[in-house]
Amino acid sequence: MKQEITIALDAMGGDHGVSVVVPAALSYLRTHPGQSIILVGREDTIREHLPGKGSLPDGLSIHAASQEVGMDELPSQALRRKKDSSMRVALNLVKSGEADACVSAGNTGALMATARFVLKMLPNVDRPAIITALPAVNGRTWMLDLGANVDCSAEHLFQFAVMGSELVSVVDDVAKPRVGLLNIGQEEIKGNEQVKGAHELLRDAALNYMGYVEGDDIYLNEEVDIVVTDGFIGNVALKTSEGVAKMIRGNLKEGFSQNLLTRLSALFALPVLKGLSRRIDPRRYNGASLLGLRGVVVKSHGGTDALGYAHAIDIAAKTVRADIAARIEEGVTRHLETLRKPA
Amino acid sequence: MKQEITIALDAMGGDHGVSVVVPAALSYLRTHPGQSIILVGREDTIREHLPGKGSLPDGLSIHAASQEVGMDELPSQALRRKKDSSMRVALNLVKSGEADACVSAGNTGALMATARFVLKMLPNVDRPAIITALPAVNGRTWMLDLGANVDCSAEHLFQFAVMGSELVSVVDDVAKPRVGLLNIGQEEIKGNEQVKGAHELLRDAALNYMGYVEGDDIYLNEEVDIVVTDGFIGNVALKTSEGVAKMIRGNLKEGFSQNLLTRLSALFALPVLKGLSRRIDPRRYNGASLLGLRGVVVKSHGGTDALGYAHAIDIAAKTVRADIAARIEEGVTRHLETLRKPA
Repeated sequence: MKQEITIALDAMGGDHGVSVVVPAALSYLRTHPGQSIILVGREDTIREHLPGKGSLPDGLSIHAASQEVGMDELPSQALRRKKDSSMRVALNLVKSGEADACVSAGNTGALMATARFVLKMLPNVDRPAIITALPAVNGRTWMLDLGANVDCSAEHLFQFAVMGSELVSVVDDVAKPRVGLLNIGQEEIKGNEQVKGAHELLRDAALNYMGYVEGDDIYLNEEVDIVVTDGFIGNVALKTSEGVAKMIRGNLKEGFSQNLLTRLSALFALPVLKGLSRRIDPRRYNGASLLGLRGVVVKSHGGTDALGYAHAIDIAAKTVRADIAARIEEGVTRHLETLRKPA
Repeated sequence: MKQEITIALDAMGGDHGVSVVVPAALSYLRTHPGQSIILVGREDTIREHLPGKGSLPDGLSIHAASQEVGMDELPSQALRRKKDSSMRVALNLVKSGEADACVSAGNTGALMATARFVLKMLPNVDRPAIITALPAVNGRTWMLDLGANVDCSAEHLFQFAVMGSELVSVVDDVAKPRVGLLNIGQEEIKGNEQVKGAHELLRDAALNYMGYVEGDDIYLNEEVDIVVTDGFIGNVALKTSEGVAKMIRGNLKEGFSQNLLTRLSALFALPVLKGLSRRIDPRRYNGASLLGLRGVVVKSHGGTDALGYAHAIDIAAKTVRADIAARIEEGVTRHLETLRKPA
């Protein structure tokens, strides 16, 4: 039983626009025959990046959109002035049912605001959250929110935990993903009010809640599948991790290119270095899901290449196949009921 | 002109207590003749770790304290019940002028609370902050607060920036250290109210303020010497960084020990790997200063070894030599006045 899935791509979004999105779409369709992709954007620009510039390959179609959302454009402006943007039109296709999901590498704030406006939120979910998987000693750990919400209440954090659990149980095929709540280690001044409140809610809920975790647990704790935090902290943790990894990679590169001897040693070390490089390759983790919406929306990193973008398409397809939105709706309602029950 | 500095060490603090503190003290005195160290704690336990168990080396003395603060003890309990703890007595020696600074590897919350109680805050400073240096592409970047304060107002963040500037200008010998305010990249929803407020204050102040920075800038931005954030976020960023670095180190180790060939290649790669290891060695960055107090207090990592602990002693000595507390007091007052002046 193979389901045909149609994914709308915001072809103009991201730092590299069509030059990344079109090759990613072609590569995805080659490896996933029978699936469909709609490229949304300026038709002439899109066609320029297609091979042969003539007929479209099987499964690929183009849907015209005359505008683009700038990477630095304010979400409110994009919402008001860009009604025919590739981003907005791609989301409209999800709303109308012509597409099952939308992938965009465009401006996160605008994507979040437009997706919320076009698709609306699920009932009982107050705010959307952004979630992604990160490489970890236990394979991978998911973290949310990554920047959609800067000030979160205890209830918001609780909803993130529920949404994350539903997603991860499906995508990683684990019955009860283990949830940790990001906090700092000091007793007494431990946590702020929101985190303490979320801790109470999570303890009483029917989730597989493991308690507080700290920053290093994201990567080193084998007992946790999902780390829940607010968008400001999640975003800082994500960017900080990227910074450390890049610095170390740079240091290794510099070290190995110092002189003839180190360059020679790099040749010997190459298999190991490549293995590491592959393991922490951000392209293999590209694709953050916007949870809490009535529809599947995946954000690709703005600067990724075709390999990374294709990974984001794959995440969108998996999410559709698992019917995540319906599961989250059901999950949030169920967990809220558990909470309301007297002990 | 050589100043004699006396540093009181909380000999019982940290995961390893005397077995790390005593060797660190001996090694420090060997490399810094003419300086003095007071080991505070149980005299018999301390003497057991001294070579020859007889006479004390030049510059070393012991000051008895009968209690210890546990690593998990609540700050309020430590404050109330441990009036003769090695931590408290070491801080008392700073208060009375018998020592110029105190170093402790004990429980951060208890150290912060006790230091605040014993030494008191500087005028115009509302809260103490913890600062440390981190390895970065530009050599090193300082970050504060690292966990002393979980909910900070705009004014608190501003005071952190002033205190950090004064410390770094002296310790790193730069006239006007460049200050960045940690934020997330999304426009419009950019930052919370506290961060936006601090941005306004910093823009108007006479500091070398570079504007907002993101998590990766801590390690990659060559234009920033100090990153200011609240204690929750700073602590998460620090721990997350440790997690990433440890995971990568683990991956490399695992990769290089897979088989005979990779083990052989590790031999060739050794100089480069050692260079990296040295560059990101947390012991070389050990020692976080508690700023804003009427006295010099340095927190050593609880799990460090004698090499790392000796580095924390060195930071304490440098801070005393630069008369940081007086400079911060003067700096905060001056910057507050600048702010109050009409434009």
